[in-house]
Parts: sequence; structure tokens; C-alpha cells
Amino acid sequence: MSRGLFVTLEGGDGSGKTTQAELLREWLAGRGREVVRTREPGGTEVGVEVREIVLHHRGDIAPRAEALLYAADRAHHVATLVRPALERGAVVLQDRYIDSSVAYQGAGRVLDAREVRALSEWATEDLKPDLTVLLDLDPETARTRLDASRTRYDRLEAEASEFHARVREAYLGLARDEPERFLVVDAALPAGEIAALIRARLEPLL
Amino acid sequence: MSRGLFVTLEGGDGSGKTTQAELLREWLAGRGREVVRTREPGGTEVGVEVREIVLHHRGDIAPRAEALLYAADRAHHVATLVRPALERGAVVLQDRYIDSSVAYQGAGRVLDAREVRALSEWATEDLKPDLTVLLDLDPETARTRLDASRTRYDRLEAEASEFHARVREAYLGLARDEPERFLVVDAALPAGEIAALIRARLEPLL
Repeated sequence: MSRGLFVTLEGGDGSGKTTQAELLREWLAGRGREVVRTREPGGTEVGVEVREIVLHHRGDIAPRAEALLYAADRAHHVATLVRPALERGAVVLQDRYIDSSVAYQGAGRVLDAREVRALSEWATEDLKPDLTVLLDLDPETARTRLDASRTRYDRLEAEASEFHARVREAYLGLARDEPERFLVVDAALPAGEIAALIRARLEPLL
Repeated sequence: MSRGLFVTLEGGDGSGKTTQAELLREWLAGRGREVVRTREPGGTEVGVEVREIVLHHRGDIAPRAEALLYAADRAHHVATLVRPALERGAVVLQDRYIDSSVAYQGAGRVLDAREVRALSEWATEDLKPDLTVLLDLDPETARTRLDASRTRYDRLEAEASEFHARVREAYLGLARDEPERFLVVDAALPAGEIAALIRARLEPLL
């Protein structure tokens, strides 16, 4: 059905997803491919409105409501932007997709990660990426990158660090389950080397 | 778990749900019960924001995104308002619940009604009403009530009329499947008679 290519980038904040998406876009455009760069949440106008509720609503949002709002954003994004782009043959480079929901939910343990995945699969009519690049970074390095000047961490920050370690483990578990879909790259490598690894994996898919 | 009573009112627009909810509220309050009157969508602040997207977003919303937004509204409403009220022993009188989503979706045939129901059951952690009052009205009478002065109907209005006939059939099908939960009342009866029928069914549950 789809003539295009759906590539998602996953990894924690500070892992270099934006840099790699831009390097990849330039390379693909140089080969004459239409490239659509997008992200979740917030890749459409409806998504921006949904994101506004999730991020800026005063007071708590029930966990299931939050998961459903993210799934709504995803449903609209895939139906109105991603699928049409793939159908006309474009390469879609997307910052975060279902794996993010599953990894963060699995790490947070508020909801069942399998149920969260099922929700997203329904939302997207089971659209799977052709390739998912996981930019893997150990939490210590990520923390150093994000805030090189700090020398002391309080209890909340230590908890946050444990949380990020769990997110990383969840991501690596997903990659182990689907090695044919995932490319796991050491995000501590220089950006140019990472880009070369991604290009080598992508080339035969083009 | 719950000491309260969860009563939902279903039926098309113009079937008298608001009138019956108010009569029921007065009667229950007279018996010293705490009564919470609410509705979906839009029974909470988050719900009002979600409803704003669904009703006032310029441009179409993908059908699955719309269903997920309604489910998000429902999840937040049940978790933050309905369940707490039931747990402190209140009677919750709610205008529209899962049956509305299932009946309207089933009639519209955009999405699978069973999937839409599964979504709502996940959203609400399967909270079921103790009693659902279906105010049943044939579409002709409903149309006459809503617009008594019209004598001619164009194609779109005729389609709308067929749609409402399908909603009615879907509602009656749900009631047949769960007779122990549903009370079906002829909405063409005088309001006082309908109220008496509802009270008679509710009395043993109190």
C-alpha cells in the first residue's frame, strides 16, 4: 500500500534525535527524496491543542485520560499527515512514536505497557515503522550532557535518574524483541559516525 | 467497593433526559440522598477543553482521534468525579455514558461499535451503571417535537432522520442485551408518568 518509508527516532532527551533527523533529511533530500520531518506529540494543529491540555491544564489529569489524549494526537497525526505522506512516496522522519509511549509507560508503571501499546495500535490502525533508530545513552552521560555544571543531586533528581535508567532498559527491551525493525546506536559516538551508521542501515530500504 | 448508585440517562436529543434528571434529583434529595448531576462529554474542566477541540476545531478530526478524545473525557470524568461521588455514597445522575458512544457509532458505522465500547471500558476501568434509563422516542415524534413548524424535508434532513432511526434501533438492541440494567420508557408519555416509572424501578436499588 505504502511506497514511502517510515523512520522513527527514539531515545531520551539529550540523545541527539534532532541532530540526526536533520543530517538524515539533508542526505535524503540530496538523493531527491521528498522528506517529511515530524514529531509526536503535537505534529498537527489538533495535536498542538491536545498537547496544550496535557502540558498546561491546571491540576492533575487522570492517567488513562492522559494516555487517551496522547493516543488521540497520534491517531490524527497518522491519519492526516503520516499516511498521506507515505502514500505519495515520501520518507517520514519522526521524532518519537509508539515506542516512546510504551517505554515511558513501562518505566513509570502507572498503566500496563501492553495496554498502552494496544491503544496506540488501534489509534494508528497498526502502522509500524520500517526502521526505528534508538539513540541509546547511559543516564549518567545524558545527565552530564543536559547539565554539565551540577555536582550534587537531591532525592528527586536521583529518582529522576532511576526513572531514566528504567526508560533506557525498556527501550533496549523493545529493540531486543524486534531486531529487524530497530537499529540501536551508541549516542555517545560523534554525530557524523552515528549518521553514517544510520545511512548504512537505511540504504537498502530506499 | 461503591456505596452509591450510578444512574445514566440515554436517548436522542429531545427525548426529555434533562427534565427526568431534574425530577429524579428532586425526589432523591427529598429522601436525603446526596445527588450529583453530571454529563458527558464536558462534565469536568478537562472535559470542557476536550469538547472544545471536538466541537470547534476548524477542519476535520480523524474518526479514531475523535473517539479517543471522547474516551479521554470519559476517563477523566469517571476517575475524578463519578467514582469519588459513588465512593462517598452519592447517587450520580448522568446524561449520556458509554451506551451513547456505542449507539451513535453503531448507527454511523464509521468505526466498529465493539471497539468503541472496548475503548470506553478501558477508559473507565469498566465502571458500569446500576441503572440506565432509555427514553425511547420514535424519530418522527422527535422531529415533530424539535421542529413543529416544518412541513418539508430535504435530502439531508431525510438522511438525518434515517440516522436517528438507526440510533434508536442501536439503543433498543443494547437494552435487549442487558434487560437487568436497562429501563426502557416511552418518551412520548407525560413527564410525570415517566418519572413515576423511573422511581418505581429505582426504589429497590436505594
